[in-house]
Amino acid sequence: MMRVSIAGGSGYVGGELARLVLGHPGLELAQVSSERSAGQYLSSAHPNLRGRSDLRFCPIAALEPADALLLALPHGHSSRQIGRFADLAQTVVDLAADFRLDTADSYEHWYGEPHASPDWLERFTYGLPELHRERLAGARYASGVGCNATACTLALLPLARAGVLDEARGIVCDVKVGSSEGGAAWGAGSHHPVRSGVVRTYAPAGHRHTAEVRRNLEIENVHLSVTAIEMVRGASATCHAWLSQELSEKDLWKLYRDAWTNEPFVRIVHEQKGSWRHPEPKILAGSNYADVGWALDLEHGRIVAFGAIDNLMKGAAGSALQSLNLMLGLDEGSGLDFPGLHPV
Amino acid sequence: MMRVSIAGGSGYVGGELARLVLGHPGLELAQVSSERSAGQYLSSAHPNLRGRSDLRFCPIAALEPADALLLALPHGHSSRQIGRFADLAQTVVDLAADFRLDTADSYEHWYGEPHASPDWLERFTYGLPELHRERLAGARYASGVGCNATACTLALLPLARAGVLDEARGIVCDVKVGSSEGGAAWGAGSHHPVRSGVVRTYAPAGHRHTAEVRRNLEIENVHLSVTAIEMVRGASATCHAWLSQELSEKDLWKLYRDAWTNEPFVRIVHEQKGSWRHPEPKILAGSNYADVGWALDLEHGRIVAFGAIDNLMKGAAGSALQSLNLMLGLDEGSGLDFPGLHPV
Amino acid sequence: MMRVSIAGGSGYVGGELARLVLGHPGLELAQVSSERSAGQYLSSAHPNLRGRSDLRFCPIAALEPADALLLALPHGHSSRQIGRFADLAQTVVDLAADFRLDTADSYEHWYGEPHASPDWLERFTYGLPELHRERLAGARYASGVGCNATACTLALLPLARAGVLDEARGIVCDVKVGSSEGGAAWGAGSHHPVRSGVVRTYAPAGHRHTAEVRRNLEIENVHLSVTAIEMVRGASATCHAWLSQELSEKDLWKLYRDAWTNEPFVRIVHEQKGSWRHPEPKILAGSNYADVGWALDLEHGRIVAFGAIDNLMKGAAGSALQSLNLMLGLDEGSGLDFPGLHPV
Amino acid sequence: MMRVSIAGGSGYVGGELARLVLGHPGLELAQVSSERSAGQYLSSAHPNLRGRSDLRFCPIAALEPADALLLALPHGHSSRQIGRFADLAQTVVDLAADFRLDTADSYEHWYGEPHASPDWLERFTYGLPELHRERLAGARYASGVGCNATACTLALLPLARAGVLDEARGIVCDVKVGSSEGGAAWGAGSHHPVRSGVVRTYAPAGHRHTAEVRRNLEIENVHLSVTAIEMVRGASATCHAWLSQELSEKDLWKLYRDAWTNEPFVRIVHEQKGSWRHPEPKILAGSNYADVGWALDLEHGRIVAFGAIDNLMKGAAGSALQSLNLMLGLDEGSGLDFPGLHPV
Repeated sequence: MMRVSIAGGSGYVGGELARLVLGHPGLELAQVSSERSAGQYLSSAHPNLRGRSDLRFCPIAALEPADALLLALPHGHSSRQIGRFADLAQTVVDLAADFRLDTADSYEHWYGEPHASPDWLERFTYGLPELHRERLAGARYASGVGCNATACTLALLPLARAGVLDEARGIVCDVKVGSSEGGAAWGAGSHHPVRSGVVRTYAPAGHRHTAEVRRNLEIENVHLSVTAIEMVRGASATCHAWLSQELSEKDLWKLYRDAWTNEPFVRIVHEQKGSWRHPEPKILAGSNYADVGWALDLEHGRIVAFGAIDNLMKGAAGSALQSLNLMLGLDEGSGLDFPGLHPV
Repeated sequence: MMRVSIAGGSGYVGGELARLVLGHPGLELAQVSSERSAGQYLSSAHPNLRGRSDLRFCPIAALEPADALLLALPHGHSSRQIGRFADLAQTVVDLAADFRLDTADSYEHWYGEPHASPDWLERFTYGLPELHRERLAGARYASGVGCNATACTLALLPLARAGVLDEARGIVCDVKVGSSEGGAAWGAGSHHPVRSGVVRTYAPAGHRHTAEVRRNLEIENVHLSVTAIEMVRGASATCHAWLSQELSEKDLWKLYRDAWTNEPFVRIVHEQKGSWRHPEPKILAGSNYADVGWALDLEHGRIVAFGAIDNLMKGAAGSALQSLNLMLGLDEGSGLDFPGLHPV
Repeated sequence: MMRVSIAGGSGYVGGELARLVLGHPGLELAQVSSERSAGQYLSSAHPNLRGRSDLRFCPIAALEPADALLLALPHGHSSRQIGRFADLAQTVVDLAADFRLDTADSYEHWYGEPHASPDWLERFTYGLPELHRERLAGARYASGVGCNATACTLALLPLARAGVLDEARGIVCDVKVGSSEGGAAWGAGSHHPVRSGVVRTYAPAGHRHTAEVRRNLEIENVHLSVTAIEMVRGASATCHAWLSQELSEKDLWKLYRDAWTNEPFVRIVHEQKGSWRHPEPKILAGSNYADVGWALDLEHGRIVAFGAIDNLMKGAAGSALQSLNLMLGLDEGSGLDFPGLHPV
Repeated sequence: MMRVSIAGGSGYVGGELARLVLGHPGLELAQVSSERSAGQYLSSAHPNLRGRSDLRFCPIAALEPADALLLALPHGHSSRQIGRFADLAQTVVDLAADFRLDTADSYEHWYGEPHASPDWLERFTYGLPELHRERLAGARYASGVGCNATACTLALLPLARAGVLDEARGIVCDVKVGSSEGGAAWGAGSHHPVRSGVVRTYAPAGHRHTAEVRRNLEIENVHLSVTAIEMVRGASATCHAWLSQELSEKDLWKLYRDAWTNEPFVRIVHEQKGSWRHPEPKILAGSNYADVGWALDLEHGRIVAFGAIDNLMKGAAGSALQSLNLMLGLDEGSGLDFPGLHPV
């Protein structure tokens, strides 16, 4: 059993990490830090873990050496003390945005402040196994992924890699998201009577995850618009694009199959009938699956690509654990076998 | 046109009062106060009123004399300055709890602090027209009503008045409520990811509205348990009681008809089939109706009485405006004609 | 009082028409037909109308002459018997798709069957007052509007009319809709455990309302993608487009103000802060407002235009009543004064 | 690996059984029958199982011998052919109501038709391990449990066994339930625009599960009232009762601890503060936990006992698998380790 600790474990991503590590056959949850909740049981912040662990949150300063360390701190915290965290564990996965982008310039452009440890950037591998499985297998440091970026990336990657998109016309990803994306801190906009039932455009342009999608797809002319809807978990990307060449349904099947058939956590959902023809995030709650699909408008050369995930799982804790499994030489899917529920 | 002002108009009840007064053919909205929002348009707090009023919130100290004053301040505020408010308007309706109960002792028992103006208590009439229409017609001062108290009171009143309840066995009102009952102030418990989809017992015993129900029904052995569910507006009381004598369906129809047939805003809902057999709060959103009904378990002498309302309307602003209409000698239903929506 | 009848009044649009006519100061609801519900009270289908009307549904064959007739029948029915309906009333508004498009060819292309009364097409005026107020004032026949088409049309019209869109790159309207768009007929896909909480792409391309938007905007390269989300009422269009010239925020304000300032039911919503910066459909439930706005991505020449409506109101019954008011020479906003609720 | 088949596997309970058996380390899913879906993949009915099984539904007549057979057929089917099912497998768990009650009379009284195989009744053990763990360990035949009955039973059992309830005054269980309780068959009442957001009293008295609760608690004077609310999964019982003797908080802790401390799937939830003080069904979705608690109104001798479960898990498939584990001599919690999600 390898011992894993979590820094910043009272938020939603931290809670998912704790749930996953506690249920992992090859990992033991050593410590979980939280300044706010120090001294309290994990279940005070994560009521679903009642009866699963007697652990109490510790202050971050009390973290001891472990085999692996998962960082679920607010953006900017991990890069300011990465040296100390690296001293605590041979293997580190940082779920914040600090080490997701390739350059300090890019980080500063999108996150509005200089990167605190630019020389560490190249030591980190972007923690999306579908992009970097081989590098992750030997990595000591991995970043997490942006949830909305992951939904868009996995939806579009088969098309981007095949070079069949008309990049000049631009690609617009209209992402629908749940309230858990906003994290555990409450405010005026998350007050239930206000937030309930909204169709709230909160980032029509300039969403930070745009940077990750552009880098992942190697296409610059991609734009995200994010709308908050009535949902707690889930992110669903509807990616609007134009084809640079005529493609048939059969061609598209081949592109998506070539990209995803061997991926354990990407499922192609493209059915002719029924209520579940296209990817649907609600049945993914708690699971590490990304469901992807498309619709082809042959007459207009238009394609709509879909990507649905649980933002806290494949979009955060799930991809992180999948990466950690690879980094530690464990079975990639270990601890990630919950398939999601239906009905739900 | 009579001029009406609202003190404490940035909360949910204040917003409903503003909406109602703006739509009332015989009233003009003079001023609306809010310390927090002073200087801003009403629509900054109440986006549904965009285009309906150019009024801006003023500080409470800037309120000028008006024909009527509606007080939608937090509990305890109105009783501390009732003299000043009474100087501003001939007619005052206070929607807080300050003047709902009959005695200062009762207020102190349920609200935990001495009443600030006990000598004013007897000048106020409890603002539920179904109980006090005649007194309201001549009144200068009326209180508002507790939302949960109103749902329970109207559900049970025909039975209580007829003396057919077995009081010794006790009456338990299991009330299901929406998140707007908590008001516009946000917190950990109202954060959407936490509050969404709950079945949260928040007052299994000792709810303050119990006092109003006991007084209204003139039955002491009544108990409320309140559960917050996934709903923004609405309160639905399921009142469990035992009959002291054998009654038939026909008897119950007669009791409810005798009590409510002439009431403009109480509807008896008791049907044999369909999805809408019993009172349902969602179709009451925005309306002043209280829908009441019952189910009889003849074998066990058990009766379940139902009362559904929009907590912000019949349970607050609607009953207040209905009372105000009576106090001002206007048509009782004026400004209260919105019937609610379906589907919704 | 003019007498108005409704053909096909047991569905959701028919129910809204009944609610509106019953609350209209200048109209009297004469008859409402429904084959399925003939003989039953209106409230059997529309529980919100309990206590508002003693009318019972009649068979369509029993409809008698009236001043105006509102047709809320399934698509294809009104065009098959328009002659008979025109004999019943001087003024007819058909809320189905039968008379929305300009040509029989276009109808056949989008609705898959030949138009039953092509010679009647030119007698009808498309019932969106924001487009055809003057023609409606003198019209005897008006069509209804497509709900999704209305949200897109009103969002984009200021830009389309000003000729500032880069039509060659294409405009994509990503529309989020509620379950009431599917009508009152239930099925596998509308079963609550299945439909609840979905982000279901049900028309990624080829939605029928596309034809209306293209015609209304006079732009061919417009495409709709429609996603069903957790909502009962409401349609919210997020329209992704590119500008053909550089525009500032000030320019956009001018375009939208020029288009909408004098419109009684279109509100510009474009604020800098708060939870209600952009149009939001939930606060429009029951109201006839369309809220429109935009976001400008100056760096990329990208614009996102927003349009939010209640699909059953501004997207159906509300626009129809607004048109009817114009046709009958009544005040355009009569009977349409409900502003919507907050919180909700 | 023991081979398990499911008869009637296209419904919601059947889907949960399939999910659980597929994830169970000691069981193999042999066959799943469905007349309606025969020939189609399991994922056609259960989209969450995509990628988890290549099995296709077979007709019930095609079921072959297996180590265990799980029956998830509509009420009345299993008792009509129990002989045939018993020939197929040594171990049978029937999740319908057919074998839950002790006598054919009781079955006929509550389910309205004579029992088809009354002589089989005594061979079945009621499949709630918290009641019958020892008998289940040696049993060949077990029944399932009623979902609402389970929530009420586990909430009240510590009080009932201790004899501290005032039975003469009656116990009323006000149960709030989600839409999945109605099963996978759609209808007018489950149509999303109708069902969404309801507080629908659908069984104020006479609910069939009452029989199970009375038998389980050995108290006759217990009554259920069931209200459908906005929720897909989950049942939450608020049980209103009176104490026959004065009890302190400490006494109640002792009663509940004595009853549940050693139970792997019953958790006591009784906290002093926070949003999760009392049992909450939403965090139980997909888990086999029953969370129970209470509130004491010392002044009035009133007690409110709470029980929350996932109706498809602890209230159906979860208890069935827990029972099956016992019957097969496997670890009782095997395959039931999913703890539920937060936030959700």
